[in-house]
Amino acid sequence: MTWDTLWLDVHLATSDPERISGEDGFGCIRNGALAVQDGKIAWVGAMEDLPAPAHTLARELRHGQGLWMTPGLVDAHTHVVFGGDRSAEFSLRLHGVSYEEIARQGGGILSTVRATRDATEEELLHKAIPRVQEMIASGTTAIEVKSGYGLRTSDELKQLRVARELARRLPVHVHTTFLGAHALPEEYVGRADEYIRHLSEEMLPCLMAENLVDSLDVFCENIAFSTEQAEKLFSRAQELKLPVRIHADQLSASGGGLLAARYGALSADHLEYVNEDAVSCMAQAGTVAMLLPGAFYFIRESKVPPINLFRHYGVPMGLATDCNPGTSPILSLPGVMNMACTLFRMTPEETFRAVTTVGARALGLEQNLGMLKPGCQADMALWDMAGPHELSYWIGGRKPRGVIFGGRVVVDPQNCALSPAV
Amino acid sequence: MTWDTLWLDVHLATSDPERISGEDGFGCIRNGALAVQDGKIAWVGAMEDLPAPAHTLARELRHGQGLWMTPGLVDAHTHVVFGGDRSAEFSLRLHGVSYEEIARQGGGILSTVRATRDATEEELLHKAIPRVQEMIASGTTAIEVKSGYGLRTSDELKQLRVARELARRLPVHVHTTFLGAHALPEEYVGRADEYIRHLSEEMLPCLMAENLVDSLDVFCENIAFSTEQAEKLFSRAQELKLPVRIHADQLSASGGGLLAARYGALSADHLEYVNEDAVSCMAQAGTVAMLLPGAFYFIRESKVPPINLFRHYGVPMGLATDCNPGTSPILSLPGVMNMACTLFRMTPEETFRAVTTVGARALGLEQNLGMLKPGCQADMALWDMAGPHELSYWIGGRKPRGVIFGGRVVVDPQNCALSPAV
Ligand SMILES: [Zn+2]
Ligand SMILES: [Zn+2]
Repeated sequence: MTWDTLWLDVHLATSDPERISGEDGFGCIRNGALAVQDGKIAWVGAMEDLPAPAHTLARELRHGQGLWMTPGLVDAHTHVVFGGDRSAEFSLRLHGVSYEEIARQGGGILSTVRATRDATEEELLHKAIPRVQEMIASGTTAIEVKSGYGLRTSDELKQLRVARELARRLPVHVHTTFLGAHALPEEYVGRADEYIRHLSEEMLPCLMAENLVDSLDVFCENIAFSTEQAEKLFSRAQELKLPVRIHADQLSASGGGLLAARYGALSADHLEYVNEDAVSCMAQAGTVAMLLPGAFYFIRESKVPPINLFRHYGVPMGLATDCNPGTSPILSLPGVMNMACTLFRMTPEETFRAVTTVGARALGLEQNLGMLKPGCQADMALWDMAGPHELSYWIGGRKPRGVIFGGRVVVDPQNCALSPAV
Repeated sequence: MTWDTLWLDVHLATSDPERISGEDGFGCIRNGALAVQDGKIAWVGAMEDLPAPAHTLARELRHGQGLWMTPGLVDAHTHVVFGGDRSAEFSLRLHGVSYEEIARQGGGILSTVRATRDATEEELLHKAIPRVQEMIASGTTAIEVKSGYGLRTSDELKQLRVARELARRLPVHVHTTFLGAHALPEEYVGRADEYIRHLSEEMLPCLMAENLVDSLDVFCENIAFSTEQAEKLFSRAQELKLPVRIHADQLSASGGGLLAARYGALSADHLEYVNEDAVSCMAQAGTVAMLLPGAFYFIRESKVPPINLFRHYGVPMGLATDCNPGTSPILSLPGVMNMACTLFRMTPEETFRAVTTVGARALGLEQNLGMLKPGCQADMALWDMAGPHELSYWIGGRKPRGVIFGGRVVVDPQNCALSPAV
């Protein structure tokens, strides 16, 4: 037995359910070691339990210097591929310009649709890369990427091709989601049902034929699409054996959470207004409650999602950036974890599982990602911290010292970003 | 005339009051150039106004690739030198343990005092360096550092020596503040007036004799020291010609803002509960209102400081991290700027001046720092953004592409922190 790499002298926060207990919600192994073989985790345990002297076990030994090692973080809800820029709109609002006036000036989500349609594939890619690089530098190694700023076949295609290309260019897993039902494009005003039919019968099959769609999402809200319209798409996805997820109950109790449960959705996302009935159904269906405190904070919501109901019914709570230019411009999952603790009163242990095992589950990849466990992808982050609870402590999040993707070091803990002192 | 370095092809957000107008609150020069000579800014203007062909003007030409250049940011309120760690306490609170119980277990500010007393100078320095490095990597080039976790001469001395040492080890200006009146040490329980006398008669002169004190601060609050006690220290500082500042009106209307105005303080900090009378006096005295949204967010305050009163009376508004382990664990000024916009409804222009010219003024360094203007220190940051308003748009803040200190590049815009793709 010779492993490719053996990491020594690391404390492990495994997030492995078999190691998690009442006293230790992180699944820790102090003074641990972790072996990598062919890009996967081959062995996890305490250094003293290694089966032979370390130097006989692996071709490469890496010393973790007592850093904490966690799974690479999973960001299971992003709109990170978009054209244009909404920071000027952010500024206008702070100068007292109303939403209505901004909409009249062509702002809001449809301005992002326009800019995304106007951009070439190359331009979209070129803009998304630094954002995803910053996500990776913040400890993220798997992201979901939604379409939904094209809203017509050629432009949804373009957006999802960029999402796939990100996985080729950068050390990150990408799960793609078709969100044609994100907003009603201007050319369909007054004909929402027709648009839904168009998505179902033309756009979705076309994108699936190009292997661009890993799941389907609908923005279900009184300002977007109804539960009936969402259900039309869900039942079509069911025929096509495509997993579904949903933007639900964010601004009002629209019933999206319940619909998610009925269709066994991977996740229902936002959920500030979800009711107890839906929560209990989500628990039975195994649907993840994907909470998005970035948007909650940015649009200054006051209604907190019902954390205690999720706890009571045993609904797994996930966390994601919801990175998007209109309501959640954030790239750091540790920053999101801090908001979940501070604003939603989740515990550090809950936020940790939310961006590891639960995030992986929301992508349908719970066997491969989000744990330090033999057989999983060797995606890890290294942190200079007192313990994994410190991950959610810093406002805005601290950066990891190192990031490893498929066993390969992509942010090196030996490097210091800063030049030597004066 | 030959300059050391000439930066070309940068858009400048100068923050120079002479360039700021109603239409442009940042003082912008598009397609600008900036020359450095002997660590200072020697020339600022549009590229087309350069007095001769660029290559004849400087020994080194640097191309900014259309990035935005701002002054290096000024963080005028930090407690960044501290021992121990309070992330476990953060976690306990989220698990439902009360403040009282945490205090009984030895938590709270006095746990930081204990840990700071127990640490050696070398240990404190070693812990502070990565924090300040992250501040610098976030665009900050000048910080204020307070004592106040030693609370006895030898340990206040140690803390302030570390503060001075940071300026020797890292590319950052450090302004030191003596905050012996941060909390009542255990050995003085029931004898607060005596402690104040000790600070005034023994500790302060001793620290000043070692040239460790650039200003004096008092935590004036019903849980800390009274305005009468604060005034005793202020009048002593006045005798010693030492500038003063104050933690004021954060949790209650304690009158600290008014006291600050009466003593012409550099700044009064926090100010959630300050009243109109005090605001008008602060305006006359020229005292900066130093707002600290990190603490507001972290301890879940609901009362917002009276931004409109500061505007009405023309009190300059500053922003700082208040970086400290108990109530504001944050290192990024752009992250603070976003909170000031989102939570306090400040404009991006106000937040920009708050961390440039106003921050410099709160350190008494408004002639030297916080502007892109000939004669000022050549401390700059380079940002890949649509404009300076985007600085306050990202939740948690984005990192700059480059940082320059005294004309020297300390974070190089050419480097990419991330290794090449897979
Ligand atoms: Zn979303
Ligand atoms: Zn403070």
